[in-house]
Amino acid sequence: MEPILKHSARAGAAVLVVCIGMLGLLGTSALAGGDGGLRPHAKGQYDASTNTYTVVAGDDLIEIAERFGTTVGTDAAAQTDPLPSWNDGPAKQAIIEFVKTTTNPASPQFVPPAERIATFDQDGTLWVEHPLYSFVMYALERVPDLVKAKPELAKVAPFSTVLEILKGDRAALAKLTLPDLEKVLAATYTGRSVDAFTAQATQWITQAKDSRWKRLYTELVYQPMQEVLKYLRANGYQTHIVTGGGQDFVRVYSSRVYGIPPEQVVGTAGVLKYEYDKDGKPFLFKEPKLLLNDNDAGKAKGIHLMIGRRPYAAFGNSTGDRQMLEYTHSGQGARLAMLVLHDDAEREYAYGPAQGLPDTKVGTFTQALYDEAEEQGWIVISMKNDWKRIFRFAE
Amino acid sequence: MEPILKHSARAGAAVLVVCIGMLGLLGTSALAGGDGGLRPHAKGQYDASTNTYTVVAGDDLIEIAERFGTTVGTDAAAQTDPLPSWNDGPAKQAIIEFVKTTTNPASPQFVPPAERIATFDQDGTLWVEHPLYSFVMYALERVPDLVKAKPELAKVAPFSTVLEILKGDRAALAKLTLPDLEKVLAATYTGRSVDAFTAQATQWITQAKDSRWKRLYTELVYQPMQEVLKYLRANGYQTHIVTGGGQDFVRVYSSRVYGIPPEQVVGTAGVLKYEYDKDGKPFLFKEPKLLLNDNDAGKAKGIHLMIGRRPYAAFGNSTGDRQMLEYTHSGQGARLAMLVLHDDAEREYAYGPAQGLPDTKVGTFTQALYDEAEEQGWIVISMKNDWKRIFRFAE
Repeated sequence: MEPILKHSARAGAAVLVVCIGMLGLLGTSALAGGDGGLRPHAKGQYDASTNTYTVVAGDDLIEIAERFGTTVGTDAAAQTDPLPSWNDGPAKQAIIEFVKTTTNPASPQFVPPAERIATFDQDGTLWVEHPLYSFVMYALERVPDLVKAKPELAKVAPFSTVLEILKGDRAALAKLTLPDLEKVLAATYTGRSVDAFTAQATQWITQAKDSRWKRLYTELVYQPMQEVLKYLRANGYQTHIVTGGGQDFVRVYSSRVYGIPPEQVVGTAGVLKYEYDKDGKPFLFKEPKLLLNDNDAGKAKGIHLMIGRRPYAAFGNSTGDRQMLEYTHSGQGARLAMLVLHDDAEREYAYGPAQGLPDTKVGTFTQALYDEAEEQGWIVISMKNDWKRIFRFAE
Repeated sequence: MEPILKHSARAGAAVLVVCIGMLGLLGTSALAGGDGGLRPHAKGQYDASTNTYTVVAGDDLIEIAERFGTTVGTDAAAQTDPLPSWNDGPAKQAIIEFVKTTTNPASPQFVPPAERIATFDQDGTLWVEHPLYSFVMYALERVPDLVKAKPELAKVAPFSTVLEILKGDRAALAKLTLPDLEKVLAATYTGRSVDAFTAQATQWITQAKDSRWKRLYTELVYQPMQEVLKYLRANGYQTHIVTGGGQDFVRVYSSRVYGIPPEQVVGTAGVLKYEYDKDGKPFLFKEPKLLLNDNDAGKAKGIHLMIGRRPYAAFGNSTGDRQMLEYTHSGQGARLAMLVLHDDAEREYAYGPAQGLPDTKVGTFTQALYDEAEEQGWIVISMKNDWKRIFRFAE
């Protein structure tokens, strides 16, 4: 599509109508916005001096568009299903309806681009959270290093219990109380500089594997939700993660895994201390004290603190997301609130206890939450029925 | 400039070189990224269904480009001075050198676009802070309303003192101690819902005027710094405000005044409470308790909490900005740290006490800070010598 230029004059003002070029599959194009950084499937080279981007094998049109802050042309988009991993049904329909309604300037529910905010819980919403949240697995698997540095810890609970769990004693997991867990989280997430933590977490996340699929945790992201993230971004929405997990932890991989930059990750965060190293260089030290518990009502507070706008769409999967959905959905105009129900024991996991599914302490979805969703018009996504495929690797 | 399309084949991969169209003054163009929202000088109508933007009188090319997430073509940019309100000199040169070095892919100090973060103090750096910070003026001028609601306050200090100040008793200002001020700030910034506060602050900022220039506070922004904000954004930098002022206060006008959206405002923030109104709708209540004091080391902490990346450029004007500049400048590669020195009593104000300028409690720039800047290679901007004009209204 060629840019079109028209001139006309009206009431003394120069009026210039500029047709916005669009990214076409093979047609002429307009990338335009400057390089926004690598995407998992837009890794070609960008030469700013000549303003050219070289497409490479494996590139994904939507991700190229994202990288350069542009959109895929509507002609192309109309021909392609933006949510190919979703079965047709009320959930898929609600997402598409929401995007169409809020981005059509003729719609009374049109949302100006600057206000297009969508928030996503991570564990159980964007990736697998069973048998245990990855951010907790990280804490447990860091314990051997702690013990190496301080051998006396090997005989002290809860560290001794964690060592048993890591040796394969699954039953020992049940022994870990919440205060135990908090102690292990504090010992592995705090008491070090932000830079040291980031280096440790980066090392872990690039090699740690899930025990069931024998794949990196970062491969266990839900393909249908990746499509929702991209579809929303292609329609001008900012996508933010709002997680109960550690903010510094999720920021380590969020760009690479979800295309979500660190500044769009809200998570549980601790108090920081500004210190100096021996060369007089300043660094931030992670104190063992909570600043924001980004769960339950903490998610609404975290959203206001770090984003400052009420989202138009929110996605979660457990009681910890209830207030985020409530806060989002109670805004004026079209609002989308969705909850992923893990009802697919075969392809992933089945837990609730909503709808008679097995009970769990990890990602609890109560019947009360299910009933509230029905009453409020929040939409429950059935993993089993709404998702054609769950993982990118599972065709 | 027409989009150019070339095809070639290399090692089995489809290689497609796409020339990125650029926004030319009258030439063909590529706006592209979807409407990013109104700018003060890009208020034309955008029709998403046909992807057309109608330019109106008063439009500014850079702001149109910003609105659509694109950049002004380099041809045009090379011919125009991006900082016309700056006199030639080391400060202007440092800014231009920094942008060139960090955005040239051939430079060893090239910064990938995703990491291009610049942070700006507000009071005294982006707009006038004398005789008193605007966010404090807001608190003082809200006191009559407080007294109307609770008449007994009229006789209680510090509210009685504030009423004297507002009646024109400038000497009474000196009576206000820091604890007094904190009491007034707490009484006007907290104890109400976020929505109620936003409505009150919006009303005030749209009509409150400065006593010297008889202009809206929002007109007292420094034109040279507005140019820096735009110049950085036109080169792929995110511009964030990092202010000691109230985060919720600055977010009320930041988009309109600086083109900086709420999610890019880090400021002093209080604890929130999640509550329900009588209709069962949730809202956020501002508790009279500090969560983040975004001054001094708090600025570095706030940057990590809300942005999660170390800035490449930081701008301030007082001791409260010291750690932000130190944190920024101690990162690897090219870093720009700048301090505005108010040495222009005629066109604005003169205060330090650095360089023998009059001492002040509002925006203190000590000689120690001046010496540190010199030692560290932070650049001091002389308002008097470096700025050709200070305000947009002052030609």
